[in-house]
Amino acid sequence: MPPAHPFDDDKLHEECGIFGVLGVQDAANFVALGLHALQHRGQEAGGIVSHDPEQGFNSARRFGYVRDNFTSTDIMETLPGPLAIGHVRYSTAGSKGQTAIRDVQPFFGEFSMGGAAIAHNGNITNANALRRELIERGSIFQSSSDSECIIHLMARSLQRDIPARMEDALRRVEGAFSVVAMTRTKLIGVRDALGVRPLVLGRIGPEENSGWVLSSETCALDIIGAEFVREIEPGEMVVISQETGVESRRPFRQKKPRFCIFEQVYFSRPDSILGGRSVYETRRQIGVELAREAPVEADLVCPVPDSGTPAAIGFAHESGIPYGMGIIRNQYMGRTFIEPTEQIRNMGVRLKLNVNRALIRGKRVILVDDSVVRGTTSRKIKEMILDAGAAEVHFRIASPPTAWPCFYGVDTPQREKLLAATMSEDEMRDFLGVDSLKFISLDGLYRAAGEAGGRNNSCPQYCDACFSGEYPVEPADMIEKGFKLKTAAE
Amino acid sequence: MPPAHPFDDDKLHEECGIFGVLGVQDAANFVALGLHALQHRGQEAGGIVSHDPEQGFNSARRFGYVRDNFTSTDIMETLPGPLAIGHVRYSTAGSKGQTAIRDVQPFFGEFSMGGAAIAHNGNITNANALRRELIERGSIFQSSSDSECIIHLMARSLQRDIPARMEDALRRVEGAFSVVAMTRTKLIGVRDALGVRPLVLGRIGPEENSGWVLSSETCALDIIGAEFVREIEPGEMVVISQETGVESRRPFRQKKPRFCIFEQVYFSRPDSILGGRSVYETRRQIGVELAREAPVEADLVCPVPDSGTPAAIGFAHESGIPYGMGIIRNQYMGRTFIEPTEQIRNMGVRLKLNVNRALIRGKRVILVDDSVVRGTTSRKIKEMILDAGAAEVHFRIASPPTAWPCFYGVDTPQREKLLAATMSEDEMRDFLGVDSLKFISLDGLYRAAGEAGGRNNSCPQYCDACFSGEYPVEPADMIEKGFKLKTAAE
Amino acid sequence: MPPAHPFDDDKLHEECGIFGVLGVQDAANFVALGLHALQHRGQEAGGIVSHDPEQGFNSARRFGYVRDNFTSTDIMETLPGPLAIGHVRYSTAGSKGQTAIRDVQPFFGEFSMGGAAIAHNGNITNANALRRELIERGSIFQSSSDSECIIHLMARSLQRDIPARMEDALRRVEGAFSVVAMTRTKLIGVRDALGVRPLVLGRIGPEENSGWVLSSETCALDIIGAEFVREIEPGEMVVISQETGVESRRPFRQKKPRFCIFEQVYFSRPDSILGGRSVYETRRQIGVELAREAPVEADLVCPVPDSGTPAAIGFAHESGIPYGMGIIRNQYMGRTFIEPTEQIRNMGVRLKLNVNRALIRGKRVILVDDSVVRGTTSRKIKEMILDAGAAEVHFRIASPPTAWPCFYGVDTPQREKLLAATMSEDEMRDFLGVDSLKFISLDGLYRAAGEAGGRNNSCPQYCDACFSGEYPVEPADMIEKGFKLKTAAE
Amino acid sequence: MPPAHPFDDDKLHEECGIFGVLGVQDAANFVALGLHALQHRGQEAGGIVSHDPEQGFNSARRFGYVRDNFTSTDIMETLPGPLAIGHVRYSTAGSKGQTAIRDVQPFFGEFSMGGAAIAHNGNITNANALRRELIERGSIFQSSSDSECIIHLMARSLQRDIPARMEDALRRVEGAFSVVAMTRTKLIGVRDALGVRPLVLGRIGPEENSGWVLSSETCALDIIGAEFVREIEPGEMVVISQETGVESRRPFRQKKPRFCIFEQVYFSRPDSILGGRSVYETRRQIGVELAREAPVEADLVCPVPDSGTPAAIGFAHESGIPYGMGIIRNQYMGRTFIEPTEQIRNMGVRLKLNVNRALIRGKRVILVDDSVVRGTTSRKIKEMILDAGAAEVHFRIASPPTAWPCFYGVDTPQREKLLAATMSEDEMRDFLGVDSLKFISLDGLYRAAGEAGGRNNSCPQYCDACFSGEYPVEPADMIEKGFKLKTAAE
Repeated sequence: MPPAHPFDDDKLHEECGIFGVLGVQDAANFVALGLHALQHRGQEAGGIVSHDPEQGFNSARRFGYVRDNFTSTDIMETLPGPLAIGHVRYSTAGSKGQTAIRDVQPFFGEFSMGGAAIAHNGNITNANALRRELIERGSIFQSSSDSECIIHLMARSLQRDIPARMEDALRRVEGAFSVVAMTRTKLIGVRDALGVRPLVLGRIGPEENSGWVLSSETCALDIIGAEFVREIEPGEMVVISQETGVESRRPFRQKKPRFCIFEQVYFSRPDSILGGRSVYETRRQIGVELAREAPVEADLVCPVPDSGTPAAIGFAHESGIPYGMGIIRNQYMGRTFIEPTEQIRNMGVRLKLNVNRALIRGKRVILVDDSVVRGTTSRKIKEMILDAGAAEVHFRIASPPTAWPCFYGVDTPQREKLLAATMSEDEMRDFLGVDSLKFISLDGLYRAAGEAGGRNNSCPQYCDACFSGEYPVEPADMIEKGFKLKTAAE
Repeated sequence: MPPAHPFDDDKLHEECGIFGVLGVQDAANFVALGLHALQHRGQEAGGIVSHDPEQGFNSARRFGYVRDNFTSTDIMETLPGPLAIGHVRYSTAGSKGQTAIRDVQPFFGEFSMGGAAIAHNGNITNANALRRELIERGSIFQSSSDSECIIHLMARSLQRDIPARMEDALRRVEGAFSVVAMTRTKLIGVRDALGVRPLVLGRIGPEENSGWVLSSETCALDIIGAEFVREIEPGEMVVISQETGVESRRPFRQKKPRFCIFEQVYFSRPDSILGGRSVYETRRQIGVELAREAPVEADLVCPVPDSGTPAAIGFAHESGIPYGMGIIRNQYMGRTFIEPTEQIRNMGVRLKLNVNRALIRGKRVILVDDSVVRGTTSRKIKEMILDAGAAEVHFRIASPPTAWPCFYGVDTPQREKLLAATMSEDEMRDFLGVDSLKFISLDGLYRAAGEAGGRNNSCPQYCDACFSGEYPVEPADMIEKGFKLKTAAE
Repeated sequence: MPPAHPFDDDKLHEECGIFGVLGVQDAANFVALGLHALQHRGQEAGGIVSHDPEQGFNSARRFGYVRDNFTSTDIMETLPGPLAIGHVRYSTAGSKGQTAIRDVQPFFGEFSMGGAAIAHNGNITNANALRRELIERGSIFQSSSDSECIIHLMARSLQRDIPARMEDALRRVEGAFSVVAMTRTKLIGVRDALGVRPLVLGRIGPEENSGWVLSSETCALDIIGAEFVREIEPGEMVVISQETGVESRRPFRQKKPRFCIFEQVYFSRPDSILGGRSVYETRRQIGVELAREAPVEADLVCPVPDSGTPAAIGFAHESGIPYGMGIIRNQYMGRTFIEPTEQIRNMGVRLKLNVNRALIRGKRVILVDDSVVRGTTSRKIKEMILDAGAAEVHFRIASPPTAWPCFYGVDTPQREKLLAATMSEDEMRDFLGVDSLKFISLDGLYRAAGEAGGRNNSCPQYCDACFSGEYPVEPADMIEKGFKLKTAAE
Repeated sequence: MPPAHPFDDDKLHEECGIFGVLGVQDAANFVALGLHALQHRGQEAGGIVSHDPEQGFNSARRFGYVRDNFTSTDIMETLPGPLAIGHVRYSTAGSKGQTAIRDVQPFFGEFSMGGAAIAHNGNITNANALRRELIERGSIFQSSSDSECIIHLMARSLQRDIPARMEDALRRVEGAFSVVAMTRTKLIGVRDALGVRPLVLGRIGPEENSGWVLSSETCALDIIGAEFVREIEPGEMVVISQETGVESRRPFRQKKPRFCIFEQVYFSRPDSILGGRSVYETRRQIGVELAREAPVEADLVCPVPDSGTPAAIGFAHESGIPYGMGIIRNQYMGRTFIEPTEQIRNMGVRLKLNVNRALIRGKRVILVDDSVVRGTTSRKIKEMILDAGAAEVHFRIASPPTAWPCFYGVDTPQREKLLAATMSEDEMRDFLGVDSLKFISLDGLYRAAGEAGGRNNSCPQYCDACFSGEYPVEPADMIEKGFKLKTAAE
C-alpha cells in the first residue's frame, strides 16, 4: 500500500463510511454500490460481510477502492445472501503509516448463539482502558483497531441474544460512534447518545416486498434507488428483521444531540440530506454569509475545487461578482504519484491542480476554500494564482479557524500542526501571503446550517470542538497520552 | 483489461496524447508528468521511450493510467537519459474490444544509422493500402496499429538521416496526424498540412540551460513548469537538438489549416490554450451564444458534469438565471463497475452521477451538456432530474448536432448510431422526452471560437466534419469498407 | 489457491513443519531457510513471526512455497530481530478445500505480560469440546484451526508468565503435538507426552556466541549449518533464553513414548536422523527386510520415485537383482496442471512420471513403493510399465497395509477410501492387476527401524495406528463425528 | 524476472525445446503438455501460437514455467484450433541478464499469402551479418533474438508459398538449428544439414483419424501418448498437412551428420531415445566405461543428483561397490532463493543439496557427476562430503573435460571461465581438493554412445566441439567478436 498523497494531507478526513442491507437478493451487491457512494468517507480499504441461510457468513476485505475490489463476479459470488454489511475506511495509522488487512472492518465474532459482524464509524475515547481490561481477562485481540473492543465486550456479555449483548457492549463504550451490525437474520443500527456521526434508514424495492437499508449518508440510498425513511436518532438502536420490521430501542441515557458540524462543511457529499437540510444548500449559504461578513472588491470568485464550489457559488451570487473556474482539477489524480527527483517534488500541487491562466491574468481573485488545516496547500495555490498573473488574491474560508483536533472519528493532525492553533487570522494572512484572509464566524456557520439565532453558546446545537475546543465527550485516551484540554484562559 | 465503462460510451473520445522532452536530466519523469496531464486524451494505455548515451534506448508500455504505471522508482529507473517521448491512448479496437500491448506506442525501429521511436496522434486514412504494399515488399508488422506504417516507411527510405526518412515516410501518409519522435540525439515534432490535431512547443528550465518540450496541449507544459513558446504550425516539422536548437522544416505542400473544432468543444482541457484562445473562454462563450440563440424561462442553470460546466457558467451569466450544481459526480468512478444483476444494471448512470434533489425539486431546470452522441446518457439524466421533482427540463447543447463520424483520430460510433444522423432536432427532443432541446448553431460555435463572422462556408476555418459531413481529407480506408460520403442532396 | 494435484492425493501427508531460532542476527532469515528444508512437511502455506527489541513483534503469512514468499529483501526486512519462529502447513481443509490466510500459523496473542506466538505440528483430538467451552466463556476465534485453542487457553490462564501459561494450556489439550513458541525473549519447544511428532534442538554459530534452534527434523539444522544437540524428549518443555540457556520442564504426566513410525517410512526426509537412527538407513533396511520376506525372481528393481528409492536400493542389494531407474520423474511438476479436456485428463500420472521404455522392455520388474493408500496411482503406474513392454510386474511395498486413518496431524482419507481397509492383500493384488504384491510385515518394519525383536504387541514401541488401528490417544472429536474404533472382532 | 540461481550456473544449459501438433482438437493443450515434458531444455519462458480456421492465429508468451502459465482455462481458451506450435527457452542474455517478452518465441510474421509462426532451437552463427543486411534493406527487428532473422528472410523471399520461403531463408542461415513452424494449415519441421540439435516425428490419436507431432525429444511424445515415428533427418524439411500427410524435402547440400554428443551426456532427458539409443542406457554405460578406465578402491558410489545418477548406477554395477544416496536434493528448490546476508550467502549449495551424514561418515566415497564446468559447485560438494566425515573423496566425471564453449544453441561461459580450459586434470584435482579426479576419455564416451570403435578422429561421428575444440560450423559472429579458434599447437 502506498502512502496517501502528500497534497491531500492538508484536509481533515472522515474516517469511515458504513452501509447495510437486509431483504434483497444478493445484498452484497447493493452494499458494494452503497460503499462506492460513500467512498469519500474512506479510501484506504473496504470490507463486506454477508450471510446466506445455506452458506453461512462470508467476508471479503481489501485495500483500495470499492470499484476496484468489489466489482468482479469472482468476488461478489463469494458473498451470497439477503443480508450484508460493509465498511470503508481511511487510514489513521500513526508512525508506521500503514493499516494491516486484519484492521479492516467489518469485524466478525462467533458467539455461542451464532455469529455477528459489526462495522463502526467514529472513535472510542476509552478504548485503551477497555483493551487493557479485556486482555487482562483473557481476550485475544487480532487487530490494532479500537472498534474490536466492541466485539470482545459482546463475547463476554451474559445476555442471551446478540442485540442485547450489543447494548451491553455499547454501554461500556465512550466516544462518538455510529454502528451497523448483523446477525444471521437481523440488521442492526446504532448511534451514540450525542449523535455525532450520521446514520440513516431507507427502504428498497417494491412495497409488498421491500428490504431495509442503513447508510452513513442519504447519497448512498440514491445510488441503489432506495427511499429515505428517516435518520436513526441520537441514542437509538434499531433492530431490523424481515419478519418484525424495525424495532427501536434506547440503550443509552438520553442527552442533548451534538451532531458534527464539519459533516456539513466538508465531510458529507453535497447531494446528501443531513438533519433535514441539504448539504449543498448549507454550503452555498455559507458562501452567502461569508460574502456578507467579509465582502471585498474583486473581479472573479473562484472555488478551490472541488470542496469549495458550493460556497463559491453562494459567494458569487450574493456579491454579484462573476463566478469562474480559475483552478482546474486533474480528474485522473489517484492516491499516489511519482516524486523521483527533488526537481519534480517541488512542483507539488500542480499534479492535482492547474491554474486557468487565461481567466486569472490581471484579475482580482477571490478564492473560496472549505477550510485551512496546515496551510501548506493554501500557500501553494496562492503562488500558482500569482504566477498566473492575478492582480490580487483574497482567501475566503467556509469554516471558522480549525484550532483543535477531533477525537470522534476524524483524522486530524496534532494540535501544534494546525495553523489556527498557533496563529491569529492576521498572522495566517501574512503566512499565506495573500491580500486578505477571512474565515466565516462560528455564528455565521450556525446560521448557514439553519440555526437562525446562531450558536447557543451555553448549549451548542452541534459538536464544533475542532473550532471551539469544547469537547462534548472527554477524550480519555488522548488525555492519558498528554493532550491538554482548553483552559479557562484560552 | 476490463472493457470501458458503458456509461462513458455516449461521448466522442480523443484517441491519443503525445509528449516529448529533450535536455533535462531523467527526461522520462517529465514525460510521465506530461502524460498524466494529457490523460483525458487516452486512458487505456501509455508508453514511454527514453534514450541515454550510455544505456541506449529503453522503453516501458503499460495498460492503465499513467499514475498507476509510471510512478514507481522501479519503472522510472529503467528509463534513464535526457531525451524521452511518450504516448497515451484510448482503445479503438473493433469487435475484439481489446488492444494488445504490442499496439501501445511509442513504436521503435532500429535503422542502419541508429534507432528511432515515434508516437502518433491522429489517424492515417490510407493505412490499409500502405500496409498491403509494405507486406508485399517484405515488411513484418508487429501490431495492428495504423501508426506502425510510418516506421516501416522510414525503414525503407533511402535517405541517410532519420529526420529525412521521416519526411519521406510522412509524405506517403494521408490523414490527420501530429507526431512526436526521437532519435538518439534529436526530438522531432510534426503536424499534418491541415493541422487537424494540436501540437505545441515549450521550454523548460533556467534560460542558460533549458530543455525543450513538445506536447499535445499547453496544460501539460504547466504541470512541469515549462514555458509555452508557440504552436507547431500546420505542415511544419521541427527537429530539435541540444546543440542546434529548433530547426523548422516544411515537408508537405502547403494547405489552408483546418484545426479540429471539437478540440475546442470537448477534447482539450479547459486550462489549455489552443490557437491563441483559452479553451475555457471558448466554452464559456458557447454558453453565452447558446443563451442568446436559445433562451428559455427557467429557475436554474445546471451543468452536466464535468464537461458542460464552462458553457453552463456562460449561459447562466448571459441569461441571469442562477447557476447551481444540480448533478453531483462521484469522484471515485473508474473505468469499470459491478453489474452483476439485471436489477443493478438498470440503475445505470447513477453509479457516476447523482441528482442534488433538494436543489432540483420544483424548479424549471436548464441542463447544459457539451454534446449528444447516441442520446442514451441524456435520456437517463433527464429521468433522474424528473424523478427528483423538476418542474421542467430544458437541454442546451454546446455543440451542433453530431451527425457524422470522425476519421481523424477520434473514436466515434458508426454513423447510424449517431442520434443526429437519423433524427431532426424536434425528433431528438421527443426521443429524449424533454421540454425543449437546442443545439448551438455552427455559426454560433464559430463565433464563440473567435470567428466573429461565423463559419466561412466556402472555405471553413476549422475541420467540422462531425457536424457538417465535409471531410477535408478523403477517408480512403473507410470508403473501401463501404462508408458513404455526404451526397449533394444531403 | 489452486487445489492440490490429483495425482498427489494417493499419499498420506504430514501436515506441518515447525522451526525456531534464538540468538542470531536476523533470525527470520534462518527460519526461512529451515522452513525451506522442511517444505516436504507442508506445501500449502507458511508463516514467520519475529521479535526485535525495538520494533516488537512482526509477522508475515503467505500461501505457497517458502522459496517464493520468504526470499525477497522486501519481506525479510519486515521481520527483524534475533528471535523468530515459523511454520509450514499442508491443507487439511474439508469440503471447502481451501485454507484462509487467517488459518496460517504461527498464531499470535497479546497477553497482559506481553505477546506470544506459537506454531503447532500435530492435531488436538479434543479441539471441538475446547472450542465450544472457550466461546461460551467469551473468546473470539479468528481461525478455523484447532491450534488456536492453545492461545485462548493461554490467555485465560491465571499464571503470571507465558511459559507457565503454556503449561496450563497444553495440559488441557489432548492429542499429538510438537509446539515451537516464542515470547519477547524466550524460545519454547514442547512435545506431547507420547512424543508422536518429532522435535529437535540444535546450536548455531561460534561456541562463544551461539544461538539456539528448534526444528521438526535434523535436515533443517544442516541447511543453516547448525549442530544437532539432542531431541526434545516426549513430554518435555524447553524454555530457552540467551541469558539462562535451556531450561527443561516436565508439564505432563509421564507416559511410554510412541513415536510415529510413518515418519520413518515416508514423512521425514531421508537425510534426517530420528531417534538416533538415519531415516535413509531405516528405509534401505526396510528394502532388505522386504527382499527377505517376499523374494521374487526378476530382472530389475525399480523405485517408484522418489520416496521408494532407498528401499529399492536395499532390496536390490539384498536380492542381487540389478537396480535401475525404470520410472523418470518430471522435475518441473508443481502443485497444479492443466486438465482441460477429457482426452488429456485420462493421461493422468504421465504428467509427473514417465517410463524409461528402453530399460523396461521385456523385463520382469520389481517396483518398490513406500505405501499404498487408495491404490489409484499404483494402478496407473502398473499400466504404464506394462504398456512399455514389461514381462512381469511385482509390487513390493515398504510399509504394512494402511488400513486406518491417522488423527495425529496427518492428512488421511476417510477409512472407507483406504484400499487396505476393504481388501485383503490378494484382493489388492487383483485390483492392481499385478503379478505379485507384498507389503512388509509390521514386525519387519519394526526390525528395520532398529527393534531387533520386532513389535512389542503388549506395549508397542511406536505409534502405528494407521497400520494396526490401535490409537494411543482416543480421537474424541472424530468419535463424536461417528468414527468407529477397532472392535475386538477386527 | 529474478536472475537464475547462482548454484545452477555451474552447468551447461540447453537453450530451447520446441514442439508442434497438427490435427487434434485444441492442439495447444497438447503443446502445453509437450513443453512441460521439455521444460528441462529451457526454464525461463515459453510461448505457444495456435491457428483456428475461424479465429485465425493466436499466441501467448510468458516468463516462467509451463505449468504455471499454460494451465488455466483462461489462457488455453485463447489458443483454439487444431494446429499449434510452442517453444521453451533458457535465458542467454548477456550483461543485462534479462530477456524481454518480445524475445520469447514463437515468432510470427504476416506475409502476403498469410501468416506463419516459427520456433527455433539452436544458434545462427552468421546472425550479426544477416541482421545488418536486413536492417540496411528496411526490415524492422522487434527482438534481440537471432532467430528473428529467419522470419525477415522469409518476408523478403520471392517464393509464392511459405514452405518455399522458409527453404530460401534457411539456406541463408549458418549454424545449428532445429525448427518447428506452422502456416494456417501446415506443420513444418527442419533440421540443419549436420543435424546438431534433435527433432523427432510422432503420431497421435486413433489410426483412422490421427494427428502429427514434432518434438525436440521423444519423452514429450510419451506425455501425450503419441507414438514415435522417426527422427527428422539431418538436412531434412518435413511439410505436414492433414490432407497430404508428411512431405519430405531436402533444402540443403548434404553433409555428414554431427549430432551433439552433449545431448547424450546431459541435455536430454534419460527417458528419451536419441539416434535409436536410450539416453539412460548411454549414461549408465558411461559409468561402466568410467569404472573400467578409472577404477578406485572405495566403500560407496554416490551420484551427484540428479544428472549423475545413471552413470553412478553403471559405475556401481561394474565396480561392485555399493550404490547409495549420499547427497539428498531439496525437491522444492526453485530458480531463486534468499541470500540476504553474507552469513547465509556462504552456505551456498546447501539450499539445494544436503549430505546424508549417517551414510557418508567414515566411508571412502566415489562421487559421480555429469560434467565439470567452472568447478565451483564441485568444490562445495567436496567440502560438504568431507564435513560429513568421509574418509576419502574421489570424483568421476561422466564427460571429458569441457574446455571449449558451444556456439550451437548451448549457454556456456566464456572460454576462460571453463576450468578445463586453463588447468590439466591434475591441476583440477588439486583445485577441487579431492583424493582423485578422473574424466571419461573421448573414446570411452563414444564407445558408451554406441560407437564400438571409439571416435573417428578424421571424421568424428558427433559434434564434440565443447571437448575437442573442433567446430563443424565456423562461429562467424563470435570470431568477429574476438573468439580464437584452436590453433595447430593446441
